[in-house]
Amino acid sequence: MKYTIFGESHGSAIGVVLEGVPPGLALDMTAMAGQLARRAPGKDGLSTARREADEVHVLSGLFEGKTTGAPLCLVIQNSDQHSTDYEALRYTPRPSHGDYAGFIQSKGNLDYRGGGHFSGRLTAPLVAAGAVARQLLAEKNIWVGSHISAIYGISDAALDGVEALRTLADKPFPVLDDGRGEEMRAAILEAKNDGDSVGGSIECAVVGLPAGLGAPDFGRNVEGIFSQYLFAVPAVKAVSFGAGVALSYMRGTEANDPFEIKDGKVVTKTNHAGGVNGGITNGMPVLFEVTLRPTPSIALPQESVDLRTGEEVELEIKGRHDPCVVHRAVPVIEAAAALAACEVLGI
Amino acid sequence: MKYTIFGESHGSAIGVVLEGVPPGLALDMTAMAGQLARRAPGKDGLSTARREADEVHVLSGLFEGKTTGAPLCLVIQNSDQHSTDYEALRYTPRPSHGDYAGFIQSKGNLDYRGGGHFSGRLTAPLVAAGAVARQLLAEKNIWVGSHISAIYGISDAALDGVEALRTLADKPFPVLDDGRGEEMRAAILEAKNDGDSVGGSIECAVVGLPAGLGAPDFGRNVEGIFSQYLFAVPAVKAVSFGAGVALSYMRGTEANDPFEIKDGKVVTKTNHAGGVNGGITNGMPVLFEVTLRPTPSIALPQESVDLRTGEEVELEIKGRHDPCVVHRAVPVIEAAAALAACEVLGI
Amino acid sequence: MKYTIFGESHGSAIGVVLEGVPPGLALDMTAMAGQLARRAPGKDGLSTARREADEVHVLSGLFEGKTTGAPLCLVIQNSDQHSTDYEALRYTPRPSHGDYAGFIQSKGNLDYRGGGHFSGRLTAPLVAAGAVARQLLAEKNIWVGSHISAIYGISDAALDGVEALRTLADKPFPVLDDGRGEEMRAAILEAKNDGDSVGGSIECAVVGLPAGLGAPDFGRNVEGIFSQYLFAVPAVKAVSFGAGVALSYMRGTEANDPFEIKDGKVVTKTNHAGGVNGGITNGMPVLFEVTLRPTPSIALPQESVDLRTGEEVELEIKGRHDPCVVHRAVPVIEAAAALAACEVLGI
Amino acid sequence: MKYTIFGESHGSAIGVVLEGVPPGLALDMTAMAGQLARRAPGKDGLSTARREADEVHVLSGLFEGKTTGAPLCLVIQNSDQHSTDYEALRYTPRPSHGDYAGFIQSKGNLDYRGGGHFSGRLTAPLVAAGAVARQLLAEKNIWVGSHISAIYGISDAALDGVEALRTLADKPFPVLDDGRGEEMRAAILEAKNDGDSVGGSIECAVVGLPAGLGAPDFGRNVEGIFSQYLFAVPAVKAVSFGAGVALSYMRGTEANDPFEIKDGKVVTKTNHAGGVNGGITNGMPVLFEVTLRPTPSIALPQESVDLRTGEEVELEIKGRHDPCVVHRAVPVIEAAAALAACEVLGI
Repeated sequence: MKYTIFGESHGSAIGVVLEGVPPGLALDMTAMAGQLARRAPGKDGLSTARREADEVHVLSGLFEGKTTGAPLCLVIQNSDQHSTDYEALRYTPRPSHGDYAGFIQSKGNLDYRGGGHFSGRLTAPLVAAGAVARQLLAEKNIWVGSHISAIYGISDAALDGVEALRTLADKPFPVLDDGRGEEMRAAILEAKNDGDSVGGSIECAVVGLPAGLGAPDFGRNVEGIFSQYLFAVPAVKAVSFGAGVALSYMRGTEANDPFEIKDGKVVTKTNHAGGVNGGITNGMPVLFEVTLRPTPSIALPQESVDLRTGEEVELEIKGRHDPCVVHRAVPVIEAAAALAACEVLGI
Repeated sequence: MKYTIFGESHGSAIGVVLEGVPPGLALDMTAMAGQLARRAPGKDGLSTARREADEVHVLSGLFEGKTTGAPLCLVIQNSDQHSTDYEALRYTPRPSHGDYAGFIQSKGNLDYRGGGHFSGRLTAPLVAAGAVARQLLAEKNIWVGSHISAIYGISDAALDGVEALRTLADKPFPVLDDGRGEEMRAAILEAKNDGDSVGGSIECAVVGLPAGLGAPDFGRNVEGIFSQYLFAVPAVKAVSFGAGVALSYMRGTEANDPFEIKDGKVVTKTNHAGGVNGGITNGMPVLFEVTLRPTPSIALPQESVDLRTGEEVELEIKGRHDPCVVHRAVPVIEAAAALAACEVLGI
Repeated sequence: MKYTIFGESHGSAIGVVLEGVPPGLALDMTAMAGQLARRAPGKDGLSTARREADEVHVLSGLFEGKTTGAPLCLVIQNSDQHSTDYEALRYTPRPSHGDYAGFIQSKGNLDYRGGGHFSGRLTAPLVAAGAVARQLLAEKNIWVGSHISAIYGISDAALDGVEALRTLADKPFPVLDDGRGEEMRAAILEAKNDGDSVGGSIECAVVGLPAGLGAPDFGRNVEGIFSQYLFAVPAVKAVSFGAGVALSYMRGTEANDPFEIKDGKVVTKTNHAGGVNGGITNGMPVLFEVTLRPTPSIALPQESVDLRTGEEVELEIKGRHDPCVVHRAVPVIEAAAALAACEVLGI
Repeated sequence: MKYTIFGESHGSAIGVVLEGVPPGLALDMTAMAGQLARRAPGKDGLSTARREADEVHVLSGLFEGKTTGAPLCLVIQNSDQHSTDYEALRYTPRPSHGDYAGFIQSKGNLDYRGGGHFSGRLTAPLVAAGAVARQLLAEKNIWVGSHISAIYGISDAALDGVEALRTLADKPFPVLDDGRGEEMRAAILEAKNDGDSVGGSIECAVVGLPAGLGAPDFGRNVEGIFSQYLFAVPAVKAVSFGAGVALSYMRGTEANDPFEIKDGKVVTKTNHAGGVNGGITNGMPVLFEVTLRPTPSIALPQESVDLRTGEEVELEIKGRHDPCVVHRAVPVIEAAAALAACEVLGI
């Protein structure tokens, strides 16, 4: 299954084509809408005021409600665009946004309106594609769950068994410890009030993948496959598996996951390896964490350049922006993980 | 350029096939040997006592010293193998090694001797392939450098400009602050004396890549491409770009990289984005950090299982093992980065 | 540049996503419409009576008339569908059509209406994608031309220099010898009157590709690349290069293309190799011929089976069908060739 | 399963790396040697006098006789090389050989000795790889068989049911009608005596592939997949399926394959489609024919150019060459078909 996302924030539509979808899947459009709703900006002041009616239209690949195996094209119309907000950005790239790199890459033909093809809005079709992947995984009793593990340095409670993630998707702000969640929300609102933004992390588990999938080799190893999907999510700047960066501080005796027999099955007592050894799944949950950078679009003035004159200029960004994308990114990361898991399974 | 590594630790030979090597490159076998020497186990007690004469034989793709464009096959013969050391491991997987996952994946046909295809020894052909990539990059004035950024929680000095990495390759233990390096070495030796091992991190920069390479899309974005190469290196469990995981603790005002004009060129004052915005290079060094787990093979007894009987057993690993792989992994990570940079460049 | 075609004959829309389109191309929508018009069913009785208004809508990847480098999604709405004509075909596959194979592949979920995703209608987005490729080739002075080389055994005049193909695109029935063309048309009409159909061949040249592109190896050789694009065109059952099948009847002295120097350039006096030696372009036109089978949908009764009962049944196909697809396939083959040429060029 | 062939005719060794080989296959080295023996030059005067001891060495991916799933590297040492025969060809390309195209592609760094990487000798590792694929197919009761369908215009008897191909592999000159075979051999010897060469065709069937594999789409359709493997065989210039080029002379009533029920299974009475409809297998044998050009290396003088001076020169090729490669190519085509069938099966 391969996916190709197309569209721009202020174009007529955005969408995704999924190739190689197995035939006969009764596509659950309600579940897909549910995933998109998780990603939609909320009414709680934590997100952009832009309203997005992310209704998915199926252009192809579905017949009488079931997938046919032909390419599945899902399209979402765009609306509620304030393109004029962006005119000032045409030749004045926003620091740490894709504007400058995209300007060079496109040889000056960047659709600069609302982030164009670089917009976080493009994660909507990714979530839609992920909903298809989730359904395929569910047929194999594989599920994906996650929590916000940190925002602006405020950490959620440590994960003690992946089962806790199973029902977290219903929460608008999915954390294990709601008290920490309140602190995180306060940090987001404070940043918003300051015209600033904050970053954070998401810890995610894919539960139920059998042992023995993948290979140590380039192009076939599980961590490489997952990371390629995860880094394709805007704002992701770090991906780690299991104990991740903390392994840099450990000895083998702490880091190694001892084997034991449980219910007649070989399992490990801990999961510091994140379910992957030598590039191959070991039957434990594939557990990883991603770090998302603070939203680059902030209200405070910033230093930029004029790409026409080559002069340094001060930039003030107008328009409606998320002071933090982490909570909205939760279903996006899960979607990317579900697609990665399908590839690992050879779906 | 695609690479395929083959071989097992105790097989007759290991090697790599490189497809799509541009023709006409006068292959610098001395430079390649130099890179392999950096990776070879040292005489300082920090590494395994196994001696490896990593002499590279070119089987194909080279004519009169120059690449022809046909597949380049590089082979290194194996020697100094103590296969009998490993007999006990056949059905008793080492915790956190690829043994168990590999046993399942291979349906019981794993070459268990010395880690087989999962052995760190397989990084020798990767370094050889990377040497080819480095030569191709050098023709475009692009270079790769790195330092050990941490071992067992002992951090090197913070990187203040990538130029400092340029000459570090000549050091046997490449750190910016040699005092910290001594502490790190002490931590490794201490772990060794305890029959244990330690992990660490490497920070690496690819300097000279022009702006505008890559795309935000899956399969084409620069961070995804790099991470696929980096996670194919054994022991790597985390990959981050620029400020990486620290972005989770930052606000936009700290994280954003302000633009300025320097020598008539658009640059950023900081490089928290690690040279990539929106999946596209921005002309700054591509800067990333990888975390390597502690060597899973330790001398202390560990909990394992007997894969024939399904019983829990205690495991004591014999043989010669690295108490830390981080310092030997430096040229390996650089090789992976060089290959990734070639893909980003479309070589 | 990769293309993915989506859609079904009787779905809401058909289309194509092109990834990796170079930025800055001023997309010539008029030329694209012109190519689509060449493919549209004519008013001359040689084609289906179905009217298709193949107007292309650009959903993404274009800004102010120029490509941005982001995925280009082109969509054509469907209309004038007589879906009820097809109800009888749901479980009664048409001989030599994709119905049966598609039924099995889709596990019974085939969109059987009008050929579904297997419909010749899906060649419209292919022609649209090809128009983009043609523009990119034109920038490098490379052009694609072709003629109908045979229909139902009636051969066109032999090609004497590719220049003759340059202006043939303007002809509604592109043959070198119009007298032969009249005979071909008569054969098509005769088959139509008999409730039957006929097959034929198209000879096509890609002119201007430089020498030295490709490789002998799997996945990189020019003939393999072209054939993968050509066999993706419905009804194509044979692909040959240069003298093609006739090489089976030749000696080396006849088949070999002698070298000569012309205008200071190395060329060959003949082009029996079709511009490719050892999988690599030699600077001569890439010349190939494809054979298209007779349209499988014929009015005469045929032997089929009922996929529910497993009984043999007689099938009479209703609806409007082309008695021959060869003349309409000319721009489709050229589109596939243009896309293949782009891949060979590394675009 | 992906294969990469490396090596040059007069290098130290040739070989192949197979990635993604399923684990647990007890590699039948005797069967592999048998396939290589079919390809070896004979003692009957029909082939080159060069002796090739094609002994396969397994460098990796095999443990205790079984595949492990790690890359399988097979190597054949070179010997009996008369490199000096080729010195005259360095700057004087042989017409219709890969010399000129390869010279340009390699920027003048072509290994010109004995055809280098373009040599027919490189089909030995392809046959070895094919032997692995054949074993995997045999486990699923799928087999590959073929006959020489024509040489220099002398046609073999028409194939009447694929069963006849099952035992042909044992024949040194595999034709259905031995009388025709004698005529073909005479034509080859006559060409040899004249210092010339001849071309021909091979018809091949893959029997046992289930219905429903593949898709109509680019990159996934069965004819496209097969043709990519087949055109990677040197000298192949045409590939057709089923009735192939003859479909250009047919009406739908002749070309269509009527369905019937046989032993409770849906089959077709004829197989003009070659087992593929709409890019998907229909359960009938995948039947195709390839045309191989006459050997370009002939003893008669030919017109060439001097690539240094740009002058036209007469070329006389020294050395030992095959007056016809068709009979030796039979196991090579079958190997390519077996590898293609594995890809179609998702192995």
